[in-house]
Amino acid sequence: MQIRISSQESTYPIFIEPGVLDKIPSLLPKFIDGNKLMIISDSNVFPLYGQRLADLLSNDFEVSTHVLPSGEKTKQYESLFGIYNALLDGGFTRSDSIIALGGGVIGDLAGFAAASFLRGIPFIQIPTSLLAQVDSSVGSKVGVDLPRGKNLVGAFYHPKAVFIDPDVLTTLSGRFIRDGMAEVIKYAAIRDLLFFEQLEKYDGYRRVTTNIQEIVTLCVDWKRKLVEQDLYDKGTRMLLNFGHTIGHAIEVKGDFEKETHGEAVSIGMSIITHWSEAKGLTEKGTAKRLDSLLEMYALPLRSEYSLDELKTAIAMDKKNLEGKLNLVLLKNIGGAYVEKTDVNSLIV
Amino acid sequence: MQIRISSQESTYPIFIEPGVLDKIPSLLPKFIDGNKLMIISDSNVFPLYGQRLADLLSNDFEVSTHVLPSGEKTKQYESLFGIYNALLDGGFTRSDSIIALGGGVIGDLAGFAAASFLRGIPFIQIPTSLLAQVDSSVGSKVGVDLPRGKNLVGAFYHPKAVFIDPDVLTTLSGRFIRDGMAEVIKYAAIRDLLFFEQLEKYDGYRRVTTNIQEIVTLCVDWKRKLVEQDLYDKGTRMLLNFGHTIGHAIEVKGDFEKETHGEAVSIGMSIITHWSEAKGLTEKGTAKRLDSLLEMYALPLRSEYSLDELKTAIAMDKKNLEGKLNLVLLKNIGGAYVEKTDVNSLIV
Repeated sequence: MQIRISSQESTYPIFIEPGVLDKIPSLLPKFIDGNKLMIISDSNVFPLYGQRLADLLSNDFEVSTHVLPSGEKTKQYESLFGIYNALLDGGFTRSDSIIALGGGVIGDLAGFAAASFLRGIPFIQIPTSLLAQVDSSVGSKVGVDLPRGKNLVGAFYHPKAVFIDPDVLTTLSGRFIRDGMAEVIKYAAIRDLLFFEQLEKYDGYRRVTTNIQEIVTLCVDWKRKLVEQDLYDKGTRMLLNFGHTIGHAIEVKGDFEKETHGEAVSIGMSIITHWSEAKGLTEKGTAKRLDSLLEMYALPLRSEYSLDELKTAIAMDKKNLEGKLNLVLLKNIGGAYVEKTDVNSLIV
Repeated sequence: MQIRISSQESTYPIFIEPGVLDKIPSLLPKFIDGNKLMIISDSNVFPLYGQRLADLLSNDFEVSTHVLPSGEKTKQYESLFGIYNALLDGGFTRSDSIIALGGGVIGDLAGFAAASFLRGIPFIQIPTSLLAQVDSSVGSKVGVDLPRGKNLVGAFYHPKAVFIDPDVLTTLSGRFIRDGMAEVIKYAAIRDLLFFEQLEKYDGYRRVTTNIQEIVTLCVDWKRKLVEQDLYDKGTRMLLNFGHTIGHAIEVKGDFEKETHGEAVSIGMSIITHWSEAKGLTEKGTAKRLDSLLEMYALPLRSEYSLDELKTAIAMDKKNLEGKLNLVLLKNIGGAYVEKTDVNSLIV
């Protein structure tokens, strides 16, 4: 299965296929020219897949590796410095490539390193968590955190190719699937009633795992449609932020350690839909149906913070232009829209 | 006088006009939407023009200023951190803008800050040195230095508009003109015999100053043509590197303190043209004619380093893909071309 992402500037393929990891050495030469590759990965993923990939690739390329501690802390600005130095040590030029092998943290960090080193070198993405496979590896957003907030520094930068191997999800721990499930449900909730009904029928993770290739493909294709219409995130791409305004505030309040991104988004989707339903902006019963699906996949609906407490964090969110909030709401399951409002209106 | 720079992604105007600095407040609202502006400048330029500009702009915008020490050291990666923090302190969102007021260092640094903060915020350039006016403010290259080399981190990022006021050149010290003159001569040497002859007739800086608007316009327009053909620097844009391979190596050897960029480029153009003429690749007499023009504008022809000594630095240059060197040579005055060679061939 191959999905092509097109924009004004370039076009690149996303391969979605069980076992594609082993085919990368034969596929890669179509997308890059240089001799040198640096695999950037983390301490969780590298032992499982990194060394084998490095060995396979070293028949055709000069391969080096850069392994970082796993976890959100690795996405700090300072990690860039180590990557730049490793690239300089390896004598990397503008035709050599970076391969990001890992979840969203590694993809975002390695992607921004690729976007900025020598004003941009080729970049290949191999996302290994469900969250990264369905979300962060599509759409060309790369970036790092500053001590004062997430994703405050970054770029829009296209990879040369993305390789998604659903098989890696089954060998990684359940956490790597659960965290992505909130984003999967998000796609269904904002755009695809049939998909939503399908997830209701699956009734838990066992059948999700069996159907994972189809689910990933569906999500990637939804993201493709929304991103192609609006790469720079000024229109329809905003729909992807459903649950994220509150979710992001929850992550900030919890210092990115209490709730995972998926958990925070799950809570954000639930809270905002109850709020909009109470306001008469959402069809009656939508919030309850969304809650049931989230609970079916063991995702949380509430955090310890009240909506009022989260408002300061929301006002700091970079999406809130001039204090105006672009709030994504559901009209009904499968039908999301952007409601322009301001932070103060968010009091329940 | 207005020149428009077009690329696949966007188009922006360059205003070249004596006194345009005072018109910026009335022109700016056409190019930006947000309320907040940060003027980034250096300790040389800000006292001359920055405060007045800030005062003029504060009628329509919420203006803040960020003044850095003048000089190449300011272009270090660490300066970014201070800018990001100032933007966060000011509550800058994705619709607010950065204004770069200064020479190449400020333009490159502030431009990369704008390119990377929140994945890109609007950016206005006001170049105040001849070098920045004719070179670094056109072409969308922004970036910072790492301790191990110049411009190792950066991006291709378009400003919303560029304002060039030739009047500022006459109030700044002569150094700000002389350093840019090497680039002016470069345009003439690679592409424009008539312009070269004109510069020979001017016979020194007094008449350059009188004709500065025309000269700047001619250079900006040459750069526009070369950049529009080849934004990402893989073909004809390379011609702009005439004198720069050796020039850059001279800057590295002198730790960016001995020779200015213009001086290094002047030496680089002279050395490479003597070399190519000796090899029979350049019309006889070209090197002598180029030397005469450079000397007329008080630019140096030789450094203390032999070509052999410079080779290690050249091999480290990011333009030298896989050890291959894209050397820009003159066939004759006005006619440059790219000669693909390798570093070792450069022995005299």
